[in-house]
Amino acid sequence: MTVYFDVASTAPLHPVARQALTAALDEGWADPARLYRSGRQARMLLDAARETVAEVLGCRADEISFTASGTQAVQLGVLGALHGNRRRGRHLVHSAVEHSSVLHTAERHQAAGGEVAAVPVDRLGRVDPAAFAAALRPDTALAVLQSANHEVGTVQPVTETAARCGDVPLLVDAAQSAGRMDVPAGWSLLAASAHKWGGPAGVGVLAVRKGVRYASPLPADEREGGRVPGYVNVPAIVAAAASLRAVRAEAERENARLHELVERIRARVPRLVPEVEVVGDPVRRLPHLVTFSCLYVDGEVLLGELDRAGFAVSSGSSCTSSTLTPSHVLAAMGVLTEGNVRVSLPFGTAEADVERFLAVLPEVVAGVRAPLGLDLAPPAPAGEPSGGTLVLDALGKRCPLPVIELAKRIGEVPVGGTVAVLADDEAARLDVPAWCGMRGQEYLGEAPAAEYGGDRGSAYLVRRVS
Amino acid sequence: MTVYFDVASTAPLHPVARQALTAALDEGWADPARLYRSGRQARMLLDAARETVAEVLGCRADEISFTASGTQAVQLGVLGALHGNRRRGRHLVHSAVEHSSVLHTAERHQAAGGEVAAVPVDRLGRVDPAAFAAALRPDTALAVLQSANHEVGTVQPVTETAARCGDVPLLVDAAQSAGRMDVPAGWSLLAASAHKWGGPAGVGVLAVRKGVRYASPLPADEREGGRVPGYVNVPAIVAAAASLRAVRAEAERENARLHELVERIRARVPRLVPEVEVVGDPVRRLPHLVTFSCLYVDGEVLLGELDRAGFAVSSGSSCTSSTLTPSHVLAAMGVLTEGNVRVSLPFGTAEADVERFLAVLPEVVAGVRAPLGLDLAPPAPAGEPSGGTLVLDALGKRCPLPVIELAKRIGEVPVGGTVAVLADDEAARLDVPAWCGMRGQEYLGEAPAAEYGGDRGSAYLVRRVS
Repeated sequence: MTVYFDVASTAPLHPVARQALTAALDEGWADPARLYRSGRQARMLLDAARETVAEVLGCRADEISFTASGTQAVQLGVLGALHGNRRRGRHLVHSAVEHSSVLHTAERHQAAGGEVAAVPVDRLGRVDPAAFAAALRPDTALAVLQSANHEVGTVQPVTETAARCGDVPLLVDAAQSAGRMDVPAGWSLLAASAHKWGGPAGVGVLAVRKGVRYASPLPADEREGGRVPGYVNVPAIVAAAASLRAVRAEAERENARLHELVERIRARVPRLVPEVEVVGDPVRRLPHLVTFSCLYVDGEVLLGELDRAGFAVSSGSSCTSSTLTPSHVLAAMGVLTEGNVRVSLPFGTAEADVERFLAVLPEVVAGVRAPLGLDLAPPAPAGEPSGGTLVLDALGKRCPLPVIELAKRIGEVPVGGTVAVLADDEAARLDVPAWCGMRGQEYLGEAPAAEYGGDRGSAYLVRRVS
Repeated sequence: MTVYFDVASTAPLHPVARQALTAALDEGWADPARLYRSGRQARMLLDAARETVAEVLGCRADEISFTASGTQAVQLGVLGALHGNRRRGRHLVHSAVEHSSVLHTAERHQAAGGEVAAVPVDRLGRVDPAAFAAALRPDTALAVLQSANHEVGTVQPVTETAARCGDVPLLVDAAQSAGRMDVPAGWSLLAASAHKWGGPAGVGVLAVRKGVRYASPLPADEREGGRVPGYVNVPAIVAAAASLRAVRAEAERENARLHELVERIRARVPRLVPEVEVVGDPVRRLPHLVTFSCLYVDGEVLLGELDRAGFAVSSGSSCTSSTLTPSHVLAAMGVLTEGNVRVSLPFGTAEADVERFLAVLPEVVAGVRAPLGLDLAPPAPAGEPSGGTLVLDALGKRCPLPVIELAKRIGEVPVGGTVAVLADDEAARLDVPAWCGMRGQEYLGEAPAAEYGGDRGSAYLVRRVS
């Protein structure tokens, strides 16, 4: 029996959701646009669900439209607000660590001639409200900020940022926190996803405050306030609303409990496993989510071994994992994009399962690292290499191999000496500086590999400090 | 207990769908993009569902993408094919009787600078393949034709039309027939909707043949072959596939039975109810669907009374009923757009229920007509009015009142005499000629109402023939 620690991907269906879904398949199956009895009944259930969701999210029922997914809510929210506010201009501002649905929508906007600014975050993945506000321009039509980060759990300063947005509408992507935490004040548009809080798949929420300009980017359709075309999925919406209310009621107790369990993982993993960095904000964070980076480990392999050991966890770069591109979130934070493990605990997670995970993790990581033959004890300093720089040729090697090579051999140069890592895997550009930040070495910069005898790629220069 | 005769709006959930949904909520709840056990299991269920749907629809599994609705399948199919074939040009051809989702997508294309041609249909609602082909141009990027009409049940000559499309891709909207009938050959893209065949809401199908150019109109997303962004709703898709297979297996027997029941309605309603026209093709039609127009009746009122009498039926203009615009389908056919009743029978419809409907209908219609004080027996010819033309002032009266006035008083002119109906309800422009077609009178055309003493609107001229 596998223990499921990946609720940030999708939550198991809440018992209340299942019950409501079964009932609504009987009572709310008809078309809510029809005027006969079963149609009116479906409409009443839909109206009641809308009231419930509005109440929990803190807005009016007529501000809520149900979408088919959180991604659709984000896409429609972003494009609809940009289109509705096009007289202000075509400038879009978002944080660098938004969900890929935001980034891809921004790319589409850019491809259509719009301008996009991504506001950087600090090493904890947190946006600075002043820096965010500084990115706004007179022609900014929309700003986007997540309530909390989906990969590292950092809670964003939404209310402080909203206060600095003036009359620029702010879309808050609340997918990771809706149901678990209060929605922060100050949003103009809000996006959320039911399957993240224990509702069924197939339901997202797009809320648009009265008075916020919005023009649908899709062909006309009269359903869901003209915002979401297509037949309305009443049974799933009823189940989504019922579970949102249930989860919100349980959250206070469960959040405190899960917060403590995550605290254990944050504190003990670095003591149990060598060469690990826990990432994300240790204080202003989601109660149930933690990510740590295991140096010198291929994340996919590690996840596979943990699965075999009975734990379903995810990688920090989970939403883009099949594309083999490094996580843009971790890259923006300047931490290692390789070897990440994201643990996100469902409501009701047993303490014993967390303890078992902590007991199993060290040997699983050690088992994955073993074939690399990495001696993690610092090697004795060797003589200074010729020209004062040790050249490591990692050309043709995929990350994390270049960093592993660096870690293995930096001890060969004396403190103060320099290592040049030649690599053509793009991820090295992020990983070498990130490794330096983690291991207390100094990153000097990048040069053409040709200067160090390479026939392609770059040389990443590191000075040994400790 | 209401008898449900509106399966063309949505079908009751098939027992197999419910069973599969319940099982898949247990077995396929995890994210199919994840590599741990529960994720792989969800992926396997998704793959199997895709195989099933492909097999029933007659295509390859990798040609199928699951959408959130039939409307989304149509929107993505049309816009994606137009975008993918933009080098051919920006000309779109569709029949005049497509679903509103096609028409609204065409409007959006037109608003963005594209060109659109709507091919007319005959009085039975049927497209002429030669006329359709004649609308194609060298710059036509896409043609759209439904498998069968959703308002009147007319089956379109898809295969014959496809054969004349040459290399212009043809999108077939199979929403009304998928599961019940074989998908006609010749399509390049196909759209369908699971809740129409007894699957759950929240699942549509977009199939794109290998080699057909397609470019997603939405922001990038790697799911569903890059065609449909957002979290994949595995349990609902599993249920949709299971019910599609079940329905297809039952269809042959049920189609024959329902065909006969519809035949009864088609034959007997005109005998039971005065002033009724059954519309749509009597032969090449969906087995389970029939629409008839009751003259001199407000359709919404009639539906309400039928609901009170225990029958859930719909109006021919059901998908646009809340907007009060006349049905574009009935308008294109040149039949009355008022007073329509669409009866669409679910699988398993009891013969006794159809008989009861036929027993109840005449008095329900009579009850709705009674307040109009319409003497449906032709009045005795009166003397010829001054100037040879009887002027009926229906200005300010909403349809069907202008037609009712005409029906009431045409007997006042002798055979060969003329009536001028003054009206400012736009629907009169469709309804007066349609009424003439039904009642065997001659429609002469339209003139400014001012020529007949009106201060606004138009005069619709009718010659009494019989």
